[in-house]
Amino acid sequence: MAGRTSQPGRSVTSRVLTILDAFDINYPRLSLTEISRRSGLPLTTAHRLVNELVAWRGLQRCEDGAYEVGIRLWEVGLLGPLHVRLRETALPFLQSLYEATRENVHLAVRDGEDALYVEKLSGHRSVPITSRIGGRLPLHATGVGKALLAHETPDFLRDYLARPLPRPTCYTIVEPGRLRADLERVVRRGYAVTREEMTLGTCSVAAPILDDDGRPVAAVGAVVHTVRVEPAKLAPPIRLAAEAIAARLRDGSRS
Amino acid sequence: MAGRTSQPGRSVTSRVLTILDAFDINYPRLSLTEISRRSGLPLTTAHRLVNELVAWRGLQRCEDGAYEVGIRLWEVGLLGPLHVRLRETALPFLQSLYEATRENVHLAVRDGEDALYVEKLSGHRSVPITSRIGGRLPLHATGVGKALLAHETPDFLRDYLARPLPRPTCYTIVEPGRLRADLERVVRRGYAVTREEMTLGTCSVAAPILDDDGRPVAAVGAVVHTVRVEPAKLAPPIRLAAEAIAARLRDGSRS
Repeated sequence: MAGRTSQPGRSVTSRVLTILDAFDINYPRLSLTEISRRSGLPLTTAHRLVNELVAWRGLQRCEDGAYEVGIRLWEVGLLGPLHVRLRETALPFLQSLYEATRENVHLAVRDGEDALYVEKLSGHRSVPITSRIGGRLPLHATGVGKALLAHETPDFLRDYLARPLPRPTCYTIVEPGRLRADLERVVRRGYAVTREEMTLGTCSVAAPILDDDGRPVAAVGAVVHTVRVEPAKLAPPIRLAAEAIAARLRDGSRS
Repeated sequence: MAGRTSQPGRSVTSRVLTILDAFDINYPRLSLTEISRRSGLPLTTAHRLVNELVAWRGLQRCEDGAYEVGIRLWEVGLLGPLHVRLRETALPFLQSLYEATRENVHLAVRDGEDALYVEKLSGHRSVPITSRIGGRLPLHATGVGKALLAHETPDFLRDYLARPLPRPTCYTIVEPGRLRADLERVVRRGYAVTREEMTLGTCSVAAPILDDDGRPVAAVGAVVHTVRVEPAKLAPPIRLAAEAIAARLRDGSRS
């Protein structure tokens, strides 16, 4: 087998997963040549593995010959606890929050050093923003991210602040001292606020969903036009939603 | 390798995919022994492949030692067109429909002989139902399913009606003649209705999302308490939402 000969250290499993890794939100459709190039696999190996993935419906072939992620991968992915447990539990509360605000409503978790978006509700009147379900944004630049970061352990926070932090706008707070003070305010107030720290023209308000031990399991937030809403006014309904979801998750984990 | 010796005809890729197939909505958490049994793979093979999947974060190990679907599979699955193209385009319209009705709002596609649910919005006041995102229900017993089935080709319909059809309730229409008449009514009226055909106590109204050639690409519908709502009253907003989504999808595919 060409793949095995050229890369003896890689297992077949890792090659299959490398093919899946070739796809991302900027490259959701790839030709076979692109898959080979992005995965670093020889064309013949890529071709064989892609065909097996297509047969399983993990990938699908478009009319123009390009490949995209197929129904089976989508189905299997939705069996995970982020969707089944967290999203399903939170949805009615997110829906109420959306109805009360008509703004973009987010549910996110921390994954590594990112805020990972698990749900996003938005309507025609919500301000257009870059977040998307399955997408990642920096913790320190987003409302949900700050709500999560503020409740992390001192060790985690120290490591997070020790590295150079991305600065999506000129308002993003990246100085360790200022960011620490901001996060302490989040804990004190019970909610996080960002003002044009991720995107110019929008601000956000978010509250953490804490477990029995006070660990942040997720955060819920809203993103609004800077000029349209006073962030503090959004804090009460968002905190209520976060607390209701936390209570429901605790009930679920006990049953 | 144990797996190869015992099952010489199966490729490593197919074995990895068999492990993923071991998980479903009734079995979202599996022990290694269960994975081995459900996939038909020897324990040693299953163990090795599961470890590779865990390293990639396609599976994750819980505190009790069981495995569940991990973040990477969820992330990759969301890159497919069902989510990125269809769900994202439809969401604002589904959201408006939810606000207008406060009922369970569904977006579904046909996959094989099933209605496959791509989105479900529901609030505290919506009637509890069995549908879920990524879930499947019979085409002929659901509103979205009938809306899709009614616009299928004569050949597809003939094959569909030729097999024995599941009957979730005593009201499910399974006789080919009656079902055909019902589907013709769907086309004539522009919307489908079910009355306790999937679940006792609920009925549904749905409309198809058609492409330029009149092919059904998806359907949008609502599920309500039988006693609370006259289905016909829901038809106008549902048809409007379906037509708006269809127009937006056509714009998207032209750009």
